[in-house]
Amino acid sequence: MKTEAVEQWDLYEITLPGPSEGNPFREVELAALFRRAGRELLVDGFYDGDGVYRIRFMPDEVGEWTYVTRSNVPQLAGMQGRVVCTPPSTGNHGPVRVAKRYHFAYADGTPYIPFGTTCYAWVHQTDSLVEQTLETLAQSPFNKLRMCVFPKSYVFNENEPPLYPFEGCPLTDWQFDRFNPVFFRRIEACLYRLRDLAIEADLILLHPYDRWGFAQMTAEEDDRYLRYVVARLAAFRNVWWSMANEFDFMEGKNDEDWDRMFRVVQDADPYDHLRSIHNGARFYDHSAPWVSHCSVQSGNMEAGKMWRQNYGKPVVFDEVCYEGNIEDPWGNITPQELVHRFWRGTVAGCYVGHGETYLHPHDILWWSKGGELHGESPSRIAFLRQVLGELPHGLTPAEGNWRWQDRAVMVEGRCYLFYFGPHQPSFWTLPEGGPWHVELLDTYQMTRGVLVRHAEGGARIRMPAKPWQALVVTRR
Amino acid sequence: MKTEAVEQWDLYEITLPGPSEGNPFREVELAALFRRAGRELLVDGFYDGDGVYRIRFMPDEVGEWTYVTRSNVPQLAGMQGRVVCTPPSTGNHGPVRVAKRYHFAYADGTPYIPFGTTCYAWVHQTDSLVEQTLETLAQSPFNKLRMCVFPKSYVFNENEPPLYPFEGCPLTDWQFDRFNPVFFRRIEACLYRLRDLAIEADLILLHPYDRWGFAQMTAEEDDRYLRYVVARLAAFRNVWWSMANEFDFMEGKNDEDWDRMFRVVQDADPYDHLRSIHNGARFYDHSAPWVSHCSVQSGNMEAGKMWRQNYGKPVVFDEVCYEGNIEDPWGNITPQELVHRFWRGTVAGCYVGHGETYLHPHDILWWSKGGELHGESPSRIAFLRQVLGELPHGLTPAEGNWRWQDRAVMVEGRCYLFYFGPHQPSFWTLPEGGPWHVELLDTYQMTRGVLVRHAEGGARIRMPAKPWQALVVTRR
Repeated sequence: MKTEAVEQWDLYEITLPGPSEGNPFREVELAALFRRAGRELLVDGFYDGDGVYRIRFMPDEVGEWTYVTRSNVPQLAGMQGRVVCTPPSTGNHGPVRVAKRYHFAYADGTPYIPFGTTCYAWVHQTDSLVEQTLETLAQSPFNKLRMCVFPKSYVFNENEPPLYPFEGCPLTDWQFDRFNPVFFRRIEACLYRLRDLAIEADLILLHPYDRWGFAQMTAEEDDRYLRYVVARLAAFRNVWWSMANEFDFMEGKNDEDWDRMFRVVQDADPYDHLRSIHNGARFYDHSAPWVSHCSVQSGNMEAGKMWRQNYGKPVVFDEVCYEGNIEDPWGNITPQELVHRFWRGTVAGCYVGHGETYLHPHDILWWSKGGELHGESPSRIAFLRQVLGELPHGLTPAEGNWRWQDRAVMVEGRCYLFYFGPHQPSFWTLPEGGPWHVELLDTYQMTRGVLVRHAEGGARIRMPAKPWQALVVTRR
Repeated sequence: MKTEAVEQWDLYEITLPGPSEGNPFREVELAALFRRAGRELLVDGFYDGDGVYRIRFMPDEVGEWTYVTRSNVPQLAGMQGRVVCTPPSTGNHGPVRVAKRYHFAYADGTPYIPFGTTCYAWVHQTDSLVEQTLETLAQSPFNKLRMCVFPKSYVFNENEPPLYPFEGCPLTDWQFDRFNPVFFRRIEACLYRLRDLAIEADLILLHPYDRWGFAQMTAEEDDRYLRYVVARLAAFRNVWWSMANEFDFMEGKNDEDWDRMFRVVQDADPYDHLRSIHNGARFYDHSAPWVSHCSVQSGNMEAGKMWRQNYGKPVVFDEVCYEGNIEDPWGNITPQELVHRFWRGTVAGCYVGHGETYLHPHDILWWSKGGELHGESPSRIAFLRQVLGELPHGLTPAEGNWRWQDRAVMVEGRCYLFYFGPHQPSFWTLPEGGPWHVELLDTYQMTRGVLVRHAEGGARIRMPAKPWQALVVTRR
């Protein structure tokens, strides 16, 4: 029995030779039971083609783990091993979890404030474009990326992907029970790169934008696909499961199907990664226990606080329209409007995502293919991220003062963030308590400066009577 | 029996001497039954002080009317007369009615497109300020004015009014059953002046902003007051009844009280003027049969179309926040935001009202006291009014094309008004049908010009990729 080392929340992989005849994807069952100090985690393995089987493990506790494999194939069963889990290295904070009910933190307790963007089909573009996307992300404020497992067929997305998820002929028939390991390795390579950039992969498992048939698989095929994806990818600490983009636009699947698929993912994932589902025109019931947070498509930022309260979960506005200039209204708001929606969502106690859809001579729109960012909003979003990063984690919408409604998040008595949007007051009354230090921010010009160094509680301070201002009020 | 002449929808007044002893306001009943060609209208009279009684009649049909008075005082009963109603003169279109279910028109069929503003307490200011307000209104785009019968006590509204509606001592006790005719004559003089400016008076009968006790009268007192106001003012063709401003902020009155008071006004008004009620935090049930249209306080322009559908009545956003710079969020939006809300409400098939709250060295804020306008929105609202006035009356929200949702009103196949708000498309696909003439408007810069002179139905036209644009698309 050999012993190997892996750092906490990193990926430890067991590789086993096994049968390649028949259909191993369908016929071979494989798992490993990991044990440590009375705890047991059952981790599914998967067939990676060419007679190779793998089991991937993400230890969540430092110390010695042992495992033993299980399989319906004698050759793969009963293999034992020992893994020593070492403390995480710098920058490894573990997977992101829900924290303080409405917020997020890494497993080690480090706050995580989502600033997402979308490059839905970036893994399905050329290698050079994939590299360019990663370079752009490295320079961006974004720490979450919505991306699809399956390729995308949609306006501006007419190109074939370099690889397909299944064996078979693209135009005639797929073998939905034979996965293409090379396709998944490409995704895994991208997940590693995102992980190194501290970017969470909000992985979209199903979506309606399809011309290959991947959106019309049977329930059995869907479930097998989901189990395969989870077995391959759950050990990546930066993976979130987004069951679908615009789930309600997928014909042939009803809410019971989505309930079932959620549970398939939940059951197969020993690490309980975040799970959500993104709506088109109507919401899934986000109160279901298998939904970790509300992934919302809506420009109705005002409603965020209500959804937060109704569902008792974090609300992430994953789509609020994109900065851009295409014809579709979802893809042509101004950078000013997108930045406003970020701030407006923030003071509703929610989180907001970015996307960009400027016309491009070769149809390389960031929103789906990645490439370069051209807009004015990312630098402003970076400004917001910097501001929020300096404030206490998990600010709560301010209640009780009607002037503050939908205009402030706070830690009562300690810190307030006010955002005024299109309002331009000449004066503003500070909270009771204090004394307060007041900083004025221009959310679009990205300027900040001390407005009042020391103000008593309830003081009425002069404001610049301009739109898009914010105040950071902290106790001195 | 004398015969006099009055033009259609003008005010014909019968003056009768009568008793002044006791309390005529309470004790004397007076009405006149007007008859014409089998029709009968019972019109209440009122005591105007000093032994003078009046009955005011607004004939709605050309021709000869006869009347006979009724009273519990023999001296006032059985008086007969004849009134010849002549055709209306130029500019007299009669009272405004609901038209085409969701819209308004004058009684003669002339379209009326409401562009309201607010000067809640203007009649309670000095004469010179009243004159200045009227001068400003004459130069403005506004054709509806929300104004209170009772004086107003509120922030920026600390001055005492020149007159009070009741006899009694301001600081001790009012005689709520003795009206002050001089007070009401002042309001009537203002109604005449508004009428001459073709401005509808959206008369607010009750409101919570009070330090005199007028908001705390008993049900009996409220009803007597309402009947007196209606008897005095219903013959003004430019009167609308707004039961209250922020009705739900009036403590001590419940929904049954409002139901009852609505019916008091309805029963007392032989001309069936428009009736509405304006909300604070919650809506009255606008589906009640005595509500002619929804008078809404809300900045949620997106919801307008839903309310329109739910209530099956016109929706007038009478308060969407005011252009200004005061501390209160309801009074400090930018002119850009207010103009956006006007256009946004318009393409939801609704109507929107203005108000202005810039700080003033003498607390003369237009919103309540009138005076001068200082903002940038009125000229833009004039621009919108001009545009709408050139289009067919009663445009309907465009359905069926998701890109148009909340972005267009139309007469199908004939005319479309698109408004893009913070959206900045580079292209836009025209409706099927045509051929189309396309005009591009900048709603804030107030520019307009032909974009395409002749385009086929379904053509994709180039757009400037700027925010705050609108298109007028008409069939050629």
